[in-house]
Amino acid sequence: MADKTILDYETVDIDLEKKELIIIDQTKLPGKTELIRLSEAKDIWDAIYLLKVRGAPAIGVAAAMGLYILACKIVTDSLDEFYEEFVKCKDYLDSSRPTAVNLHWALERMDEVAKGEILSLKNSNYNYAQEEAIILKALEKECLLIKEEDIWVCRTIGEYGLSLLKPGDGILTHCNAGQLATCKYGTATAPIYLGTEQGYNFKVFADETRPLLQGARLTAYELMSAGVDVTLICDNTSGMVMKNGWVQAVFVGCDRVAANGDTANKIGTSMVATLAKRYNVPFYVCAPTSTIDMSTPTGDEIHIEERKSEEVTEMWYEERMAPAGVKVFNPAFDVTDNDLITGIITEYGIARAPFTQDFIDIFKRKEEAGYGK
Amino acid sequence: MADKTILDYETVDIDLEKKELIIIDQTKLPGKTELIRLSEAKDIWDAIYLLKVRGAPAIGVAAAMGLYILACKIVTDSLDEFYEEFVKCKDYLDSSRPTAVNLHWALERMDEVAKGEILSLKNSNYNYAQEEAIILKALEKECLLIKEEDIWVCRTIGEYGLSLLKPGDGILTHCNAGQLATCKYGTATAPIYLGTEQGYNFKVFADETRPLLQGARLTAYELMSAGVDVTLICDNTSGMVMKNGWVQAVFVGCDRVAANGDTANKIGTSMVATLAKRYNVPFYVCAPTSTIDMSTPTGDEIHIEERKSEEVTEMWYEERMAPAGVKVFNPAFDVTDNDLITGIITEYGIARAPFTQDFIDIFKRKEEAGYGK
Repeated sequence: MADKTILDYETVDIDLEKKELIIIDQTKLPGKTELIRLSEAKDIWDAIYLLKVRGAPAIGVAAAMGLYILACKIVTDSLDEFYEEFVKCKDYLDSSRPTAVNLHWALERMDEVAKGEILSLKNSNYNYAQEEAIILKALEKECLLIKEEDIWVCRTIGEYGLSLLKPGDGILTHCNAGQLATCKYGTATAPIYLGTEQGYNFKVFADETRPLLQGARLTAYELMSAGVDVTLICDNTSGMVMKNGWVQAVFVGCDRVAANGDTANKIGTSMVATLAKRYNVPFYVCAPTSTIDMSTPTGDEIHIEERKSEEVTEMWYEERMAPAGVKVFNPAFDVTDNDLITGIITEYGIARAPFTQDFIDIFKRKEEAGYGK
Repeated sequence: MADKTILDYETVDIDLEKKELIIIDQTKLPGKTELIRLSEAKDIWDAIYLLKVRGAPAIGVAAAMGLYILACKIVTDSLDEFYEEFVKCKDYLDSSRPTAVNLHWALERMDEVAKGEILSLKNSNYNYAQEEAIILKALEKECLLIKEEDIWVCRTIGEYGLSLLKPGDGILTHCNAGQLATCKYGTATAPIYLGTEQGYNFKVFADETRPLLQGARLTAYELMSAGVDVTLICDNTSGMVMKNGWVQAVFVGCDRVAANGDTANKIGTSMVATLAKRYNVPFYVCAPTSTIDMSTPTGDEIHIEERKSEEVTEMWYEERMAPAGVKVFNPAFDVTDNDLITGIITEYGIARAPFTQDFIDIFKRKEEAGYGK
């Protein structure tokens, strides 16, 4: 494996013959690039829960493929029983990360396919074995399609993003919206990877991203692995590198974008955006249309998950990093106000302020393009 | 020690009988409050270099006391040789931290005293042993005076700072400009401690301050120890707590203030200042006049020390926190531009923009008040 770069892998894959989900175990990074194969419900659930696979798009694909694999194992002789078991598997996987939107979304897509096939088979003359084969084939196709779409979305976002850059540019990113968060290319990293393929020689600054250090552990790792010139910095150093004139653009991912462009993403994103504004650095959010939530009017309506204080106070080398019992405020995300955002890059184009109208146009283009693509 | 609070200690002290410097070993905090005694040049240098004692004022006092202790050990029989050795000790201690202006300033004060005494002894009838005793007594007095002044300066800054606050205010601070950075009260924490004595019930937010976590390890520790309501946050969360309306003022310390008010302080300070500006939170620098360097016109002339990358990439629980060999940019300080600073609080009053004129007035008041106080 030592000779391969991250781009030789896909973060989430499936062995269709052996019916196994194949993922890079991200809890082993950056020390070790280890592929693991999963086929049992509990193992797949654990992989999502324990962040062996993480990043909204990657979780969605892993769950869809996982559900297909579990569906293949259902032993019954009636469509009703098959569907009952299928829903149990789906609900089980859905419980692994209750807040991850893509997880639910991908599992629902699989459910729609199962329901649709079952309905169309109701009055058919097939026997159960034949019916089962038809349903499984449709589920297989759907989970592969979800993955293929993810790759296409990331690549297209990368192309739009790259159009905003020139060779030699300095780019800053926060957290990991990288290949490791998707199946390939990532979202915020996609312009970097596509530019690197074309010899752009970007200088990338990766915020380490406290408390869980996804920037240090994952982004720095994957960019280094792909031969990108990457420099790791503490989050609080992002202002200084911008002030020094080393950054020509900021690219970040997102967890949810409200209809007015307010964007929820990893804690610290709004800090980076505020600094970018001060130093006149354009700040871009890379957002698959699946993360744009037109039913949420503004960022004020986005609920921010708080995580346990031990993430901040412990996990430190040998000694405690803070006094025992200290009060901690540890939100997982923050909301970046739309006035700090230069552009929101989707797979159907770049939205600019005022964002709502551009989003409406983008969703229109998506609809015209047909389902998925 | 468990029953004592931080306010029962002095961060830097001297045992005049044993000729030993006594400091709280801050690298052991918050796990253990351990006093260590130092008398060898290398140990004193290491204590400053390795941040066992840190914070500009505390370093200044420790260096002055250290220089006195080393001067006591000089074995010679001529004033010229004594002074030659003295200067070697001074230069050696001065090399331990390049950016810290107080280190140099305190050592120069000691040098002035030595030079003055030597000059006045030139035509005296004392023998060398008597001359040495006179010089050492003067150096002893000077290092004790530097410490006494530090305590007075911090307390006075605290009183000015407190005049800007009201009971119940939320206060954010970055790094540790606390009691542990000075001999007593701290600079940025002095208003908090004085207000707490008067029942102000402040809600304090302490940035953890990567990479060395002085905020988590030291500020959270000392404020908790003193019974202050303190909440620890990651540096990248400071914007969110301001946006939430939880912060009415930011107080930070400084390592060097240029003549135009540009301020060098712990990396991330300019990030906090930028966020404070966005959220209309007043941003105050607590600066003993000894840190105001009128010979440095602007922040551009302040040399910023870079530290080793391992501070960012290692020291993490069990596993590496970043890929091996990753490039790191790890500046110890940044410069906060004067337009982001609401006020610079000194022991002779509060300077506001344009800072240069106020500094001139402040130094005039200092001169009128006489040497030291």
